[in-house]
Amino acid sequence: ARPKVGYFYSGNKESIELLNRIYEIKVGEIKSVPVVVDEKTSVYDAIVSMFLEDVGTVFVISDGYLAGVVSRKDFLKTAIGGTDINKVPVGIIMTRMPNIVTVKPTETVLEAAKKIIEHEVDSLPIVEEKIIDDKEYLKVVGRISKTNITKLFIELANK
Amino acid sequence: ARPKVGYFYSGNKESIELLNRIYEIKVGEIKSVPVVVDEKTSVYDAIVSMFLEDVGTVFVISDGYLAGVVSRKDFLKTAIGGTDINKVPVGIIMTRMPNIVTVKPTETVLEAAKKIIEHEVDSLPIVEEKIIDDKEYLKVVGRISKTNITKLFIELANK
Repeated sequence: ARPKVGYFYSGNKESIELLNRIYEIKVGEIKSVPVVVDEKTSVYDAIVSMFLEDVGTVFVISDGYLAGVVSRKDFLKTAIGGTDINKVPVGIIMTRMPNIVTVKPTETVLEAAKKIIEHEVDSLPIVEEKIIDDKEYLKVVGRISKTNITKLFIELANK
Repeated sequence: ARPKVGYFYSGNKESIELLNRIYEIKVGEIKSVPVVVDEKTSVYDAIVSMFLEDVGTVFVISDGYLAGVVSRKDFLKTAIGGTDINKVPVGIIMTRMPNIVTVKPTETVLEAAKKIIEHEVDSLPIVEEKIIDDKEYLKVVGRISKTNITKLFIELANK
């Protein structure tokens, strides 16, 4: 017989199934669309992309693969530092590979949350590896942020 | 007799007690220290405060009470907009009361999370009301952000 669960926070079957599942949810399941610019894009245009898509982090690609990451904080530092943001390409100010924390679509949201907190970033690029001529390249296939995790936290309570 | 809970995600008594409690946690219990500047502070100095404390939002006070909020996004817009950030006070660019979403120390983290998502902000000022001469003033006593909520999400899994 199924045990009584009435003392549990909401007590219904769905809530327990959701709780069972929530820490198995993969980042690929709740990912957002990444905002991606080429490394030759000017800092100004990269900022505009960030505002248009209303994200906190822009991923930078070179020849189609992940080359760097720029956060709102990086942009702000550059903007107040006297740099000519119309001339300087985003590739100059980005945090560059391999100093970028990434996550794979098959990793759990919990693992992504831990990386976000440990490395003090707002979001992570979700990447797929491609091996070309024995070299590893990362294709950006999504984005996971503190916003996604906050939404999950709410969803968990609502079920 | 206590019902069996072995089918539950981690199955121990502590995890269930934590889950029972997690949606009752009040923002006052997990609040962070707020970063507060006076409305006469220059935009530049407010940005420096934000960087030094490594937060995404600065709360602005006037005569000691909440007057406005400025986010990293607001600062970036101002910085690229040609404003002289050394001369303009933060009071000019802030989002002003009463257009600020706040939360009380006695509200739950879940309520704070919902406000953060609904109003598309990164953090909320935690405030206490004071009535002086029939007027309401808000004292900033803390800060709750998506970072706090992401940490709770991790903590929930670890227990």
